[in-house]
Amino acid sequence: MIYFDNAATGGYKPKKSIEAAIYAMNNLRANAGRSGHKLSIEAEKIIYSARKTLCDFFGADDPSKIIFTHNCTAALNAAIFGKFKDGDHVITTVTEHNSVLRPLYELKRRNTIELTIVEPKTDRIMFEDIMPHIKKNTAGVIVNAVSNVTGQKNDFEEIGKKLYGSNICFIVDGAQAAGHVPINISKQNIDVLCVAGHKGLLSVQGVGALILGKDVNLSPTVFGGTGIDTFNENMPADYPERLEAGTLNLPSINSLLWGIKHLQSEINKISYSMLCMTENIIKSLKNIEFLKVFSNSNESGIISFSHDYYSSQELSGILNDRYDIAVRGGFHCAPLMHKFLKTDKDGLVRVSLSVNNNKKEISSLIYALNEISKI
Amino acid sequence: MIYFDNAATGGYKPKKSIEAAIYAMNNLRANAGRSGHKLSIEAEKIIYSARKTLCDFFGADDPSKIIFTHNCTAALNAAIFGKFKDGDHVITTVTEHNSVLRPLYELKRRNTIELTIVEPKTDRIMFEDIMPHIKKNTAGVIVNAVSNVTGQKNDFEEIGKKLYGSNICFIVDGAQAAGHVPINISKQNIDVLCVAGHKGLLSVQGVGALILGKDVNLSPTVFGGTGIDTFNENMPADYPERLEAGTLNLPSINSLLWGIKHLQSEINKISYSMLCMTENIIKSLKNIEFLKVFSNSNESGIISFSHDYYSSQELSGILNDRYDIAVRGGFHCAPLMHKFLKTDKDGLVRVSLSVNNNKKEISSLIYALNEISKI
Repeated sequence: MIYFDNAATGGYKPKKSIEAAIYAMNNLRANAGRSGHKLSIEAEKIIYSARKTLCDFFGADDPSKIIFTHNCTAALNAAIFGKFKDGDHVITTVTEHNSVLRPLYELKRRNTIELTIVEPKTDRIMFEDIMPHIKKNTAGVIVNAVSNVTGQKNDFEEIGKKLYGSNICFIVDGAQAAGHVPINISKQNIDVLCVAGHKGLLSVQGVGALILGKDVNLSPTVFGGTGIDTFNENMPADYPERLEAGTLNLPSINSLLWGIKHLQSEINKISYSMLCMTENIIKSLKNIEFLKVFSNSNESGIISFSHDYYSSQELSGILNDRYDIAVRGGFHCAPLMHKFLKTDKDGLVRVSLSVNNNKKEISSLIYALNEISKI
Repeated sequence: MIYFDNAATGGYKPKKSIEAAIYAMNNLRANAGRSGHKLSIEAEKIIYSARKTLCDFFGADDPSKIIFTHNCTAALNAAIFGKFKDGDHVITTVTEHNSVLRPLYELKRRNTIELTIVEPKTDRIMFEDIMPHIKKNTAGVIVNAVSNVTGQKNDFEEIGKKLYGSNICFIVDGAQAAGHVPINISKQNIDVLCVAGHKGLLSVQGVGALILGKDVNLSPTVFGGTGIDTFNENMPADYPERLEAGTLNLPSINSLLWGIKHLQSEINKISYSMLCMTENIIKSLKNIEFLKVFSNSNESGIISFSHDYYSSQELSGILNDRYDIAVRGGFHCAPLMHKFLKTDKDGLVRVSLSVNNNKKEISSLIYALNEISKI
């Protein structure tokens, strides 16, 4: 099977990221930060090393403010429910995934927050789209670094720059961007960055992370054992324990550590390769009759398109059944983006690349789409 | 190293439970329930098979009411925050772990619930301990199936029987019991069972589960993409999607599937072996000067003790440093149990077994403790 669904779960993992998970499963069956014995301490060292590596990779200040969750959705929930309080106003965008929208809708249903959702005037969210909506009680701006539907990067760097020094908490959903687009929370003035391990960060499934800026505090949203401060009825005040309850997933965290180590030397190469591949694919797709392309070339390797005669589900079904090519059809959990693009009836076919995809696979895709379009 | 910290994370995994995780990491790098292609569908089939297997193993009615989380703490949070509403009264026990106590304390801090915490009159929580506290507004009873400090089983079967037919939601924390003590939610009238994968259920880390009775409904507590019902601003009404947001951890879920398959034929043998081993260890410990044992023989393989001259941390440190034996000292995230046992100053040393521990390892432990006690 040719796998072009890397934005759902990355199909390419460096050998060491898999080996790291297997090593932990075979040799480190212990609970980090709970016991004082050799295995538990070795587990804890790996987890600290992962925190330190993520901290450096994303330009954070303090390894203890790298919080591990089990996916990016859990990280976004921790950020959104942990940050906003009664009477807060929050601004977000139509480019968001349901992992941002649904927590915000829930806070709105509870009458906790007032919510403004902005559209881009151009092909991306710019600070100009957000600025007119900022009010006295605006406590947060949440922006998708990259649309998971089109691969388009929002101008989060400029938004961070303009919000810097304000009391507004700037939260970035890095699910699709991390590992493709350089993100440095200190330089880009991001207060909270949420990432998934199993996509661009090249780990196996089962880990996500919150990367917190030095002045950011979140209230706990998950409560439980922390291995320390047992007699405290609340979660410990200190990070990371404040936001991490229960047993951490060592194999996935070790895998993420090695995924990031791989990226430290490879990210520029990966970004460039993605840019070239998306450019080539888009060029070819534009020559195919009945196809309409919704993406510009991008570093995240996402290309979405519709077909005049097939719904996105039908077309992705044909690619799977007849050509053994995996893409994703439908709405990609991003309802407002589809409304904005006017694709909320049939959705879009999304081709999403890894650095491991090659010219032959891309030719097969283009060949298949050409053939399907000869109706 | 001799590993006696299996109640923190199980040191023994059947070969197939590790192989299942590795298989998914190598061959099924896809997102279950998100795309329509072959790999995603195969991932979805494995996850369904895991739901069905857990459903049968725990005597539940409906595989769709098996909810995967990333650990038992997340499952307990989903149960507690998803069930209780303003004005509810909840009864729990001093034998609980912080994964139950801290969510309840939080609901109390929010003035959502009224909380009663009961002590056992005997060596275990019985229905008689709970009964006098039941009031008109009692909405839930939460009981630890097995104390993670002493290994003592609470009489959850009788509690379930007596609560049956009431409007009280009976929640059981099965973190230490599952895989050791037979649990059947239909026969034992349990409304919500929460379990950890990486302990008695023999999977790798990164998965826990909620097992819901047929008449139980929980409100969502985590919000995000579900791959279905994208335009719904709330989580879908149907299970399991209602309570599962974001990417599931396929490798760990596949591992759990094979852990449970192993238990289907082995659980009686495991329980019996644990019972014999704990009995033998306790008998030997009682002959060692200065040691005080806090456990009776039990199927969960947990034996806790204190020493007149060493704190639990010191003693477990000596076992690690001088004898290469891993046990856990301290408070085991169970503050009220230590207050009840009057061990809240120095904690307890906990030896916790897997079925894979053997006589030679046990002899080494007893030898070491004898030697240490020759002060």
